[in-house]
Amino acid sequence: MLIECIPNVSEGRRPDVVAGFAAAIRQIPTARLLDFSSDPSHNRSVFTLVGDAAGVEQAVLALFERAVADIDLRTHKGEHPRLGAVDVVPFVPIEGVTMAACVELAKKVGAAVAQRFGVPVFLYEEASTNPARKNLEDIRRGEFEGLAAKMTGAEWKPDFGPAAPHPSAGASVIGARMPLIAYNINLATDRLDVAKKIAAAIRQSSGGFRFVKAAGFKLEDRGIVQVSMNLTNYEKTPIFRVFETVKREAARYGVSILESEIVGLVPSAALAAAAEFYLQIEGFKADQVLENKLRQV
Amino acid sequence: MLIECIPNVSEGRRPDVVAGFAAAIRQIPTARLLDFSSDPSHNRSVFTLVGDAAGVEQAVLALFERAVADIDLRTHKGEHPRLGAVDVVPFVPIEGVTMAACVELAKKVGAAVAQRFGVPVFLYEEASTNPARKNLEDIRRGEFEGLAAKMTGAEWKPDFGPAAPHPSAGASVIGARMPLIAYNINLATDRLDVAKKIAAAIRQSSGGFRFVKAAGFKLEDRGIVQVSMNLTNYEKTPIFRVFETVKREAARYGVSILESEIVGLVPSAALAAAAEFYLQIEGFKADQVLENKLRQV
Repeated sequence: MLIECIPNVSEGRRPDVVAGFAAAIRQIPTARLLDFSSDPSHNRSVFTLVGDAAGVEQAVLALFERAVADIDLRTHKGEHPRLGAVDVVPFVPIEGVTMAACVELAKKVGAAVAQRFGVPVFLYEEASTNPARKNLEDIRRGEFEGLAAKMTGAEWKPDFGPAAPHPSAGASVIGARMPLIAYNINLATDRLDVAKKIAAAIRQSSGGFRFVKAAGFKLEDRGIVQVSMNLTNYEKTPIFRVFETVKREAARYGVSILESEIVGLVPSAALAAAAEFYLQIEGFKADQVLENKLRQV
Repeated sequence: MLIECIPNVSEGRRPDVVAGFAAAIRQIPTARLLDFSSDPSHNRSVFTLVGDAAGVEQAVLALFERAVADIDLRTHKGEHPRLGAVDVVPFVPIEGVTMAACVELAKKVGAAVAQRFGVPVFLYEEASTNPARKNLEDIRRGEFEGLAAKMTGAEWKPDFGPAAPHPSAGASVIGARMPLIAYNINLATDRLDVAKKIAAAIRQSSGGFRFVKAAGFKLEDRGIVQVSMNLTNYEKTPIFRVFETVKREAARYGVSILESEIVGLVPSAALAAAAEFYLQIEGFKADQVLENKLRQV
């Protein structure tokens, strides 16, 4: 079982303090800290760790213990919006684990954070218990400075913990989500209007696919345009369906696809799904992938 | 680094002896025995193990030690053609290792087998040093019983070891090859002639792709026909190219593809290559696959 967890912490200017957070995570033998990076202008650090459910749970609680002690939101300044010392904690199912299990884990960790540190916790994304509190942006609106007033409303009673912010650590947003895929399609044209119309056609916000965010851009140096996307659930809105729709919409304007690109990481299953679609493969199972099989035994 | 090795051993009727071979492999901590199975009518067992170069090398030598002691080809009977006690040993690159490294490993193991056990070794497939000794079938023709006479010819001087068979253990064929993919395409027709014509068009033996073996079959219970294939090098003859060619050839007869199926295991990279082709993905690298990245760190 492999769960990825990407805690965002409101400290990016004191390297020794950030190193202390990394050390706290590394103390947990059943979790692995893959990477962490700090942004001083955001005054924020992002940690990427993987492990089984117990491992990432312990690592997150160890991180909370240090962060609640070391961070005081009352004196924290930074460009990035934030609500708490450990601001956001998403759990992401990677291998041999369901989304439902990650939702359960988010709730378990949320309850433990509230109980051990007195920090109120809001559940978000797949773990959300309230449609108005599904999106991170909605929960974080008003930031730490507006949180005490915001939490006086019944609709902002937290999922776990006290009905008011922790004095120095604010509140935390904990939840579960699918891995994101950053995916761009370059069009064989310099017509920005075409890229913008296609982006509007495929993104959820203007009537497109449920799990697509998209915008049209000009790539000035290459004299072409790009439909730039975030795919937020590759199982329910697969890459191939987005690609085929962009291709069809572009043809409407006499434009063809030059190429596409995946920025950063992509789950193996998202590529396998495209292969299954185009090759019309029936009855394929994830454990037929040689690497998956080798890791199971 | 992950190398797969699939030794074929000429013993499939004495379970205790076969269990002893498995135990010898399991003694090597840096190799992992994934699976083994025996066929009594073939009087042959197949072992599947993985590990790094040193691990699979030690495991194969441990297997040889037991097999040379326990097997006597002079009294061995079975339906499957064979040349030696440890009959064939292919090394297959899986992850973080090149074919060239597997060829080197085959030569290193071949030299060690000849030196330690006095068994002549023929290198085959990618490790072959002689075009006439690339295919296993050519090397094995005449079997153990014909080997002593065959090896009197200069063209059958082994790559390593003595110029005559080991009295009881014969000779061994050691080499490197790509993973095989068993891939079938079902056609929406009951016309066997169409499946046979398409199989002939795509297989190497009748002028088709270099790394395709193919035949046409009738699936009586479903009233359809199948082009059944082995893809022996998915990098040089990729699945998508075979699929598109079958589709085009079928259209010639007014027939469409009903579905395809992958039988058994497929390397993740073979599916990724199909996704890259159809989605026109440029500049994709294997370490962008999330699971590959997670395993590297």
